[in-house]
Amino acid sequence: MMKVIVIGAVAGGATVASQLRRLSDAEITVYEKDRDMSFANCGLPYYLGGEVTPRNKLIAATESSFKTNKSITVKTYHEVVSVSAENKEIVVKDIKNNRTFTDTFDYLILSPGATQVKLPVLQGNHVFTLRNLEDTDKINNFIETEGAKDILIIGGGYISLELIENLKNRGLNITMLHRSSHLLKSVDPDMTKHIPDILEAHGVRVLLDDEVKTLDGKTVQLKSGRKFDYDMIITALGIKPNTQFLESSKIELTESGHIKVNAYFETNIPYIYALGDAIQTKYRHVDYPAQIALAWGAHRAASIIAHNIVNPQSTKFNGLLGTNIIRLFDYTFSSVGITPNMLDNFDYEIVQQTQKHHAGYMPDAEQISINVYFDKKTRKILRASAFGKYGVDKRIDIIATAMIGNLTIDDFKDIEIAYSPVYSSPKDIINMLGYKAEQK
Amino acid sequence: MMKVIVIGAVAGGATVASQLRRLSDAEITVYEKDRDMSFANCGLPYYLGGEVTPRNKLIAATESSFKTNKSITVKTYHEVVSVSAENKEIVVKDIKNNRTFTDTFDYLILSPGATQVKLPVLQGNHVFTLRNLEDTDKINNFIETEGAKDILIIGGGYISLELIENLKNRGLNITMLHRSSHLLKSVDPDMTKHIPDILEAHGVRVLLDDEVKTLDGKTVQLKSGRKFDYDMIITALGIKPNTQFLESSKIELTESGHIKVNAYFETNIPYIYALGDAIQTKYRHVDYPAQIALAWGAHRAASIIAHNIVNPQSTKFNGLLGTNIIRLFDYTFSSVGITPNMLDNFDYEIVQQTQKHHAGYMPDAEQISINVYFDKKTRKILRASAFGKYGVDKRIDIIATAMIGNLTIDDFKDIEIAYSPVYSSPKDIINMLGYKAEQK
Repeated sequence: MMKVIVIGAVAGGATVASQLRRLSDAEITVYEKDRDMSFANCGLPYYLGGEVTPRNKLIAATESSFKTNKSITVKTYHEVVSVSAENKEIVVKDIKNNRTFTDTFDYLILSPGATQVKLPVLQGNHVFTLRNLEDTDKINNFIETEGAKDILIIGGGYISLELIENLKNRGLNITMLHRSSHLLKSVDPDMTKHIPDILEAHGVRVLLDDEVKTLDGKTVQLKSGRKFDYDMIITALGIKPNTQFLESSKIELTESGHIKVNAYFETNIPYIYALGDAIQTKYRHVDYPAQIALAWGAHRAASIIAHNIVNPQSTKFNGLLGTNIIRLFDYTFSSVGITPNMLDNFDYEIVQQTQKHHAGYMPDAEQISINVYFDKKTRKILRASAFGKYGVDKRIDIIATAMIGNLTIDDFKDIEIAYSPVYSSPKDIINMLGYKAEQK
Repeated sequence: MMKVIVIGAVAGGATVASQLRRLSDAEITVYEKDRDMSFANCGLPYYLGGEVTPRNKLIAATESSFKTNKSITVKTYHEVVSVSAENKEIVVKDIKNNRTFTDTFDYLILSPGATQVKLPVLQGNHVFTLRNLEDTDKINNFIETEGAKDILIIGGGYISLELIENLKNRGLNITMLHRSSHLLKSVDPDMTKHIPDILEAHGVRVLLDDEVKTLDGKTVQLKSGRKFDYDMIITALGIKPNTQFLESSKIELTESGHIKVNAYFETNIPYIYALGDAIQTKYRHVDYPAQIALAWGAHRAASIIAHNIVNPQSTKFNGLLGTNIIRLFDYTFSSVGITPNMLDNFDYEIVQQTQKHHAGYMPDAEQISINVYFDKKTRKILRASAFGKYGVDKRIDIIATAMIGNLTIDDFKDIEIAYSPVYSSPKDIINMLGYKAEQK
C-alpha cells in the first residue's frame, strides 16, 4: 500500500491529509511537533477577544476523529528532525517519551509552518508570542490567573493589529509599539496612515518609531527614554519558516529558508510536496516569487497536492494573488497583488478613487478608498489596496476575480455590479476606477 | 453648433446630457413629460419607508442647476409626441401651456423610460402605482393626510417587495397579493420559495395564487371569494416601455415596444441613440436579446453614447449581464445572467452550494445558497442565483466579474477571496462551487 507521510497537522497538513483520503486509500501518517492539530489558526485572536466562544469551536478535528472518520494517523508532540529524500526516510523525535525512530514514505508532504521571531531583549514569564492554540491558551490563562490589565503589543502587522482589537474589546488597556510608523505593510501607506487615529479613537495607546531597550520586571524602557510598566507583553514581529530540519536534506530552500515548489507543489524531489506558510510559490499575474503565509493558498495547495499524488502532475496551480484583509475595529484594510516594493520593477500607472460604499442618499453611506496599480502597456492589474468601513472585502474580491480573468483597468467600466441603493451605486467605485483610468 | 435633443430627464436622460457636456459644447436640450428631472428612482421606496430623509436627498439636480452648472436646458412637463427621423425634427407638447411646437436636432437621444401597467378593475382615489417622484409624493401624502393604515400591495416583483419592506418598516399593516406563488422571477424558485415565510415573520399578510375580482370602495373581493378592506392599494405589476410616440416614426421597435439598439446604442437611424428602460440591447455572455430595466445599464450607456456622439462608433458596448439584487428585511436575493426560461436553449449543468458566509466559528455565521448554471461544453457561466443574510452581493459581484473575464466554473477554485474569519472561509462558497463542479 502507498505510504504517505505529512509533516505538520495544522491548516495545510490536516487539510492535505483529508483531501488525499477522499481520493486514495493510502496509509497516511501525520507528524505534528506541537500539542494540537487542526485548530482554527486565524480564529485565535477572536477567541482571545471573546468573539469566538466556547473554545472548542476552534478545534476542527482531533487525533481520534481523524483516526475514526478518516483512518488517518496523527501523532502530536512528534517532531521530524531530519529527512533523507534519497532513502525516503525521516527521523522522528517522540517528544513526550524522549525517543527517536525512523519512518519511511512513498510520498512526503511538508507543511511545517512558521514561527514567530522573538526579541532577545524580551525575557520573562509575562512575555508571549501568538502562533498556535497552545500560545493562545497560555495568553488566556495569564490574563485570567494573573489578572493582567496593562498589555504591551509589539509589532505593526496583521497579528499585532488583530490582537490589539481583540484584547481591547476584552476590556484590557492596550499599548501598541512599533519600530517604524508604517503599519500593515501589505496595504498602501496613504491608507494605513489612518491606523494610529483609529487605534487611539478606541483607547489604544500608540507608540511609533520606538523600540524596547531594556525590560526589567514589568518595566519597559524604550530607546526614546520613555518608561512604562506592563503586566504582559505580546510580540508579533514577523515569522520565519520552520525549515531548519530540512537544511541537511537535499530539499531545496531559498535564502530565507522557504521551501521551493513548482506549479504542482512538488519540491525539487518529485515525490516530496510542500504547502503552507513555509513555501515559496509564485504570483499568478506576474512572474515573481511569492512567500505568502495565508490560509487560502494552503487550502488550495492541499487539494492540488492530493490530486497530484494520485495522478502525478495532473493538476497545475496558476499561482497566488496574495489577497489579504483585516478588520480593525470599524474599518477594513485589504490588498491584492504584488507588494508595493515589487512595483518598482514595472512601468505602472496608478488610479485612485474615494466614494461612498452605496448610494449617498441612503443612511450609513461611508467612504471607501481604492488604489489600483496597472501596467502602462498591457493595462493589466498589478496590485490594488483598499480601506473603508463597509464593502471593502467585496471590492477587493471583485478586483482579485478581475485579475484572474486577466481584465484590464479599462474593463472595470463594464463590471456589472449588483445595484440597489442598499449595496452600491449605479457607477460603483469599481466602475469609477475604470472611468478615471481613461485619462491615464 | 451641434444640436442634441434628449427625450427623458431621469437616470438615463439626465446622465447622458451631463456626460455629453463633459466632452462637447453642443447645444443640449432635454424634454421631460413629467414633473421632475434627475431624481433617485431606486431610492423612492426607501424614502417612503423613512430610511432616506429628508426628501431633497432624492433630487440629484434641478432645471436651474443644469442650466447654471452645465448649460443644459431641461424642460419638464414637455412631452415629445412624435419624431420625424428623416427631417431630424420632433413635435413637443408643452403640457402646462397646452401648446405644441417643433424642435430640430443633429442628434437625438431617446430615454423615455417605462410605465407601470395598471389593472382596469382597480379604480379609485386610493389606488396608486409607483414609478416616479410624483407618484411617491402622492403615496406619501395619502398616507399622511388620510391616515392610511391598511395597505394592499399587488405584485410579486422588485418594486412590490421593496414597497412591502419599506411600508412595513414605517409601521403600516401590509398585505401582499400576487396572482401566482412564484415571487421575484429573476431569482431561482428554490430560493424565492422562502419569501412568504420571511414576509410573514415580519408581520406581512401574504395572499398568493389569487387576484382582485372587484373593488368597491375600500372593499377588495378576490377571485377566491375572500374579502378584505384596505385604506390604500398600490400596484406593481410590471412595466411597459414609453414608446407609443415612436410608433409613427421610422425608429425600429420590438414587438414588445422596446427600442432596438446596436452595440453603439444607435437605433436603426445612426444619429438617433437610445438608452434606459425602453431599449432592447443584448446579453454580454450569450447571443440573446436583453430587456433589462435597471440603473447600471442606463449609466453605462450614457457614457458610451456621449463618446459616440463626439466620435461616431468609437466606443462599443459588450452587453449586459442583468445583475440584480434586492434586500428583503434581513435577507438579500440576487442573480446574474440569463433568465431561467432562457436556460432551456442551452445544454447546461447546475452546481449548488450552501455554506456559512464566513468562518463557522465566528458569531453571526449565516448560510448563503448559490446556484450556478454553466454550459456543459464550454464550462462558461450562464446564470447564477443567490440568497442569504450576509455577503450575497459580494458573491454575485464576484460571479459577474468572473463572467466578464470569461472564467469557467472550474476557475472558481482559483478565485483568491480575501480571507479572514470575519469575511469568508479559506474555501469560500465561490471556491466550493468550483470544487463541486469537478464531479459534473
